[in-house]
Amino acid sequence: MYDTTLSETRRRDWDGDATGTLRLAIVGCGNYARSVSIPAIVEGRYAEATVAVSGDPDKRASLADEFGVTAVDYDEYEAGAATDEYDAVYVATPNRLHLPHVRTAASHGKHVICEKPLEATVARAEELVAACEDAGVRLMTAYRMQTDPVMRRLREFVADGGIGDLRRATGDFAFPVLGGGRDPDQWRLDGRLAGGGALYDVGVYPLNTARFLAGDDPVAVSATTRSPDPAFDEVDQYADFRVEFDDWVGGFSAAFSGREHTFLELLGSDGRVAVESAFQPGVARDVTVETAEGRVAVADAGADETVEEFDYFAHAVLSDGDIEPDGADGLVDMRTLKAIQESAASGARVEL
Amino acid sequence: MYDTTLSETRRRDWDGDATGTLRLAIVGCGNYARSVSIPAIVEGRYAEATVAVSGDPDKRASLADEFGVTAVDYDEYEAGAATDEYDAVYVATPNRLHLPHVRTAASHGKHVICEKPLEATVARAEELVAACEDAGVRLMTAYRMQTDPVMRRLREFVADGGIGDLRRATGDFAFPVLGGGRDPDQWRLDGRLAGGGALYDVGVYPLNTARFLAGDDPVAVSATTRSPDPAFDEVDQYADFRVEFDDWVGGFSAAFSGREHTFLELLGSDGRVAVESAFQPGVARDVTVETAEGRVAVADAGADETVEEFDYFAHAVLSDGDIEPDGADGLVDMRTLKAIQESAASGARVEL
Repeated sequence: MYDTTLSETRRRDWDGDATGTLRLAIVGCGNYARSVSIPAIVEGRYAEATVAVSGDPDKRASLADEFGVTAVDYDEYEAGAATDEYDAVYVATPNRLHLPHVRTAASHGKHVICEKPLEATVARAEELVAACEDAGVRLMTAYRMQTDPVMRRLREFVADGGIGDLRRATGDFAFPVLGGGRDPDQWRLDGRLAGGGALYDVGVYPLNTARFLAGDDPVAVSATTRSPDPAFDEVDQYADFRVEFDDWVGGFSAAFSGREHTFLELLGSDGRVAVESAFQPGVARDVTVETAEGRVAVADAGADETVEEFDYFAHAVLSDGDIEPDGADGLVDMRTLKAIQESAASGARVEL
Repeated sequence: MYDTTLSETRRRDWDGDATGTLRLAIVGCGNYARSVSIPAIVEGRYAEATVAVSGDPDKRASLADEFGVTAVDYDEYEAGAATDEYDAVYVATPNRLHLPHVRTAASHGKHVICEKPLEATVARAEELVAACEDAGVRLMTAYRMQTDPVMRRLREFVADGGIGDLRRATGDFAFPVLGGGRDPDQWRLDGRLAGGGALYDVGVYPLNTARFLAGDDPVAVSATTRSPDPAFDEVDQYADFRVEFDDWVGGFSAAFSGREHTFLELLGSDGRVAVESAFQPGVARDVTVETAEGRVAVADAGADETVEEFDYFAHAVLSDGDIEPDGADGLVDMRTLKAIQESAASGARVEL
């Protein structure tokens, strides 16, 4: 059964109904947007970056030069500058600034793809989702793993009973946020701007991706967090969290220090799927599937999921198609992250 | 650095000081003892099985026939039958019967290697350890993974800083206790005899082995357990437990159903070690080591750890050498297992 699935880890299952191109304003042009997201938009088929919003004059000049975009500052964006040059907004600012920028987009009647997690608090995320609903604009939470074809094939395989009944998931994402000479003053270490540390920034990957593969929502959580290094005095440097679902349990970890490492595994009654290099952007993923029929390993599986992500969003907007990682999906994780923080603070299991 | 280590995954680091042979009485001759332990004793160099204790006349006859042992029943064992034919006792009965059989061994002045977990409750395990101490006999908790040379090499590698500072461990042991036509009336499903289910029988493997590799004791635990199938109404069918140490956290799972699967991984600040097929008896272990120097994979690592286990015990008794998995080591796990059960019942984190 799995041979077919494995042969299609680059196939798009949602493509075909769209014509035209969705023009995007990039709101927040930090390193990730600039080095990962904008190049993926340029490479893709259905989206193009036409406007960039930045508070830094030098950055605006270089963005205009490098990508041929109209570059405006945040006051201009809010005032409606260049609204005839974009159809939708990609929000990649610090988490706590998502809400005002999404509100602005909605007020301009622009669709939104917003980075994960949706906001710094549940209440603000709920306001963000409501702003899009009230304005009648589409909202996608930028869960890029959901658009990686290899993850979509694995979801089908699990849904088809490929590993039997799911019993246990394991997921880890360690990202050395201060590695490679990165700035210790970055917003990811600012508790108010980020809302949380490793848990919010990278822990949401195993959480959301396991939920996506299983098609399931959490019922309870338990967690512990720690920040031994002073640089992380406002946010969790390490988070270890257990998430209970109706019929299975996920054991996850997130780290802002240490060797980069990502992994996701689902153990079922009759088999297992494991993905090495599960969450890093744009890397080849190594997939192992074990069933009663044997063990199959596929190296270099999947497509560039960030290219997929923006094409998926643009295609859905252009064709009025489904957006699976919508605001409701993002809110489930926000509520789960909040419960995880509460559990880490109290030591108690927290029900959702 | 790791090349040397990898080349020695079958090397004994404790051998050389013993002469002679330790004669063992096998107390409790169930399937595991008969198919795994006794053949390993026969294969090893320093131990031999000379006496078997069983309550079943047919089993006594077949054991005497197959292994050439003197077979006695439990009353005879307690009364001191054949004490001139053995020097030490291997206790492989249901957990709750360890204490009386160890007491008998101690009263006869016989050394003891006792299966894991030490007993069904902490109090009884403490009595067991005290009985050996009071009688001046040696006690080993039968943690066979501690004697697998590949685990001993990995412990040295971790202690030498091979993966930097330990941050996270993951470990899983799924054993389909009712698979392969096994008897649903077995003691492992009897809450009073076993003390616990998957947690006690297989969960202790990732717990003890991670502790062994790290050289560390737990400070707090949190857990959830569930038994959806009626066959497991007295014990946990699934246990998912988090164990906090001073500087790292372990996320572990144990299952009495589903596809057989075992795995152990340590994530450090500078690297990682992972062992597939980590805990099944007598299988080849696949080890992966990742450091800044690259990734090394070694298939078919380790020796038959059950042969190692009995030779290690016999060698230590014969040479008056160290026994690392001693009663104190077993008691740390018993207290941890109890705290895990308390946490699963209350939902609260439990400190040790």
